[in-house]
Amino acid sequence: MPLQGNAIVAQSGGPSAVINNSVCGVIETWFQEAEDCGAIFAGISGVKGILDGNIIDLKAQSREDIAALRYTPGAGIGSCRHKVSPEEQLKLVEILKKHQIRYFFYNGGNDSMDTAFKTLQAAAAAGWEMKVIGVPKTIDNDLPFTDHSPGFGSAAKYIAASVRETGIDLESVSTKNKVTIMECMGRDAGWLTAAAALSRRYDDEAPHLIYLPEVPFAKQKFLADVEKVYRELGYCYVAVSEGVTDEHGEYCFTTGARDAFGHVQLSGVGIALKELVEAEIGIKARCNTLGTCQRSAMHFASQTDADEAYLVGRTAVQYALAEQNGVMVTLNRVSDSPYQCVCGAIPLDRVANAEQRLPLEWITAEQNYVTQDFLRYARPLIEGEVRPPMVGGLPDYVRLDFNKGRL
Amino acid sequence: MPLQGNAIVAQSGGPSAVINNSVCGVIETWFQEAEDCGAIFAGISGVKGILDGNIIDLKAQSREDIAALRYTPGAGIGSCRHKVSPEEQLKLVEILKKHQIRYFFYNGGNDSMDTAFKTLQAAAAAGWEMKVIGVPKTIDNDLPFTDHSPGFGSAAKYIAASVRETGIDLESVSTKNKVTIMECMGRDAGWLTAAAALSRRYDDEAPHLIYLPEVPFAKQKFLADVEKVYRELGYCYVAVSEGVTDEHGEYCFTTGARDAFGHVQLSGVGIALKELVEAEIGIKARCNTLGTCQRSAMHFASQTDADEAYLVGRTAVQYALAEQNGVMVTLNRVSDSPYQCVCGAIPLDRVANAEQRLPLEWITAEQNYVTQDFLRYARPLIEGEVRPPMVGGLPDYVRLDFNKGRL
Repeated sequence: MPLQGNAIVAQSGGPSAVINNSVCGVIETWFQEAEDCGAIFAGISGVKGILDGNIIDLKAQSREDIAALRYTPGAGIGSCRHKVSPEEQLKLVEILKKHQIRYFFYNGGNDSMDTAFKTLQAAAAAGWEMKVIGVPKTIDNDLPFTDHSPGFGSAAKYIAASVRETGIDLESVSTKNKVTIMECMGRDAGWLTAAAALSRRYDDEAPHLIYLPEVPFAKQKFLADVEKVYRELGYCYVAVSEGVTDEHGEYCFTTGARDAFGHVQLSGVGIALKELVEAEIGIKARCNTLGTCQRSAMHFASQTDADEAYLVGRTAVQYALAEQNGVMVTLNRVSDSPYQCVCGAIPLDRVANAEQRLPLEWITAEQNYVTQDFLRYARPLIEGEVRPPMVGGLPDYVRLDFNKGRL
Repeated sequence: MPLQGNAIVAQSGGPSAVINNSVCGVIETWFQEAEDCGAIFAGISGVKGILDGNIIDLKAQSREDIAALRYTPGAGIGSCRHKVSPEEQLKLVEILKKHQIRYFFYNGGNDSMDTAFKTLQAAAAAGWEMKVIGVPKTIDNDLPFTDHSPGFGSAAKYIAASVRETGIDLESVSTKNKVTIMECMGRDAGWLTAAAALSRRYDDEAPHLIYLPEVPFAKQKFLADVEKVYRELGYCYVAVSEGVTDEHGEYCFTTGARDAFGHVQLSGVGIALKELVEAEIGIKARCNTLGTCQRSAMHFASQTDADEAYLVGRTAVQYALAEQNGVMVTLNRVSDSPYQCVCGAIPLDRVANAEQRLPLEWITAEQNYVTQDFLRYARPLIEGEVRPPMVGGLPDYVRLDFNKGRL
């Protein structure tokens, strides 16, 4: 007999294209399988919003709008980056008690799992029985104990397509720009940058070089690599992580340049490498920085990823009803071909603040590319296309009205 | 009776997502309607390639590969940025004569039309009768005497979708980054940056501010604008052209370098504005620079644009057969709703090196947004989605084999 009481779902950290699939999975599964227990609320803008009393009863939202979360990027119920203080932790539990919340579903990455774990501890200390289930999300793919994280596949697919397209562009007009640099997210883990390699069909296609935060970045080696490819092909395509570090573990790039307003430019890795190539090799380079497009490009998201994001949300509710507690839902790969994953669970405290980097054995000996093992791992995750409804030539994403159902 | 002889098609300048639709239109129409006149060749990498003798007979390519150009980005037969010298101009005509080329189809923007015009003049001076037809292409939409240019609609659609997605992202996690800046291409014409406005459905949605090269950029005004939006909403989304200039008409952010045509190389407006916001307003900002993705994102191209790109290629051949010469094909809008465009023609020398900027009356009095008139103009151009075939979750673009049919 499941615990009687209400549930709350909230999101935290940077969104992914498919993060709302997870929230939708939680909400729809609650309505289907747990409505007898109580209501389901959303904490608007994560724990920060819950602390501010920003909570809505999701019954007030139309089922159509809830379903539309499946093709809507961004954090559909708002997100935050907020480290909960010890005093706030006590207040958070008081608020949860006040609203008779017995189920807490927190959708986020490493830090969010830490918050979820501490909330469970604080509730237990206050004698408040509550199920806390973590719902994984991160485009960075750095959550441990799971084959991969929902959000990664879509970002990887978008990056790979963008590299293929801009690679073809480079190859076809190499009389002008000889080098294209694609700066990818993933500050401390190279998964997203590695995903650029999914683009390549022929040996001479983009990307030619990949620089990851898992191995030290050396400028001279980089320049030699670029020159070598350039001498062979007449152009060179580089994918680089925003977080490459030198042999001392320090981030590599700040430039001394000043802009038109006299401000020192703390430019990104991509621009720094573009300038480095132009200054040291003497050929023109370009830099593309997709930035937050990488984590929100639902117009080209992976259906496999979207389905799995929904699945982990759905499974979170089912685990909570099945007496699990204090765990994050994981994805365990059963086989590569045909691709199959099933859900599992891992204690929140084991996930909290831990980090899964790209395995060093998936990086080539030259330290400037990834191996076939990585490609075998990543390929199934980008399969299938989400097709959001289009109005006027643009995806028609939903925006929930947070004034509806306010507690 | 059309002139007997061979035809050549070539591409020049930066590609667009749909530029190959135009080449495909030229080739397929030639095979359908003009094969009796002679063969059709491709000059690989524009006039530069022709000068180097890099020419192929397109009969050697499979019809399937030619058809696949309709969903392939980049310059499918290679492009160049090359200013033809007077000596090269004579050599070019010699090469065209040598291969009995009586039809020259040049696919590009303003500079390319200049090259086409000069080639026609040089041929005439050499007594070589030849039809020269310009096939318009530019994502910048700055070609004059045409309602719009093929390539613009697809770039506009991709930018608008990216702004909508990253705008939702910003709005949903504004606890951390308060300002997102999207840097858009379009050196001297603000069409692409203006296209960001297509994204907006509600008054408080992204983008909130748009800065165009048509009006002087003033730092203090910009900061006041951003602060005003930020105070009202808690976040602010800015779209800015890479080519904004100060009150003296100088580019605000340049590297100092120049390209083959003497154009100043721009770099880093987005990053400079991010730094400015952080330093002067004291809130965190992010910058997205889509770079060459804007001109190659066939995975989200406009079907309307692709169809029109094909149409201008097809029409170029038909005009040449119908005794037109020395003209660029144009698109003339018949009506907005239902949207309808028909082809026309304009002498090459009137187009060459001229530029169509965004009309000042389509910019708001505050000089930081565009009007409904712009939206009415641009909306039909982004309608419909090209759906390239997908293999392994990625678009399967074609790559012609330039060793086939080499002259």
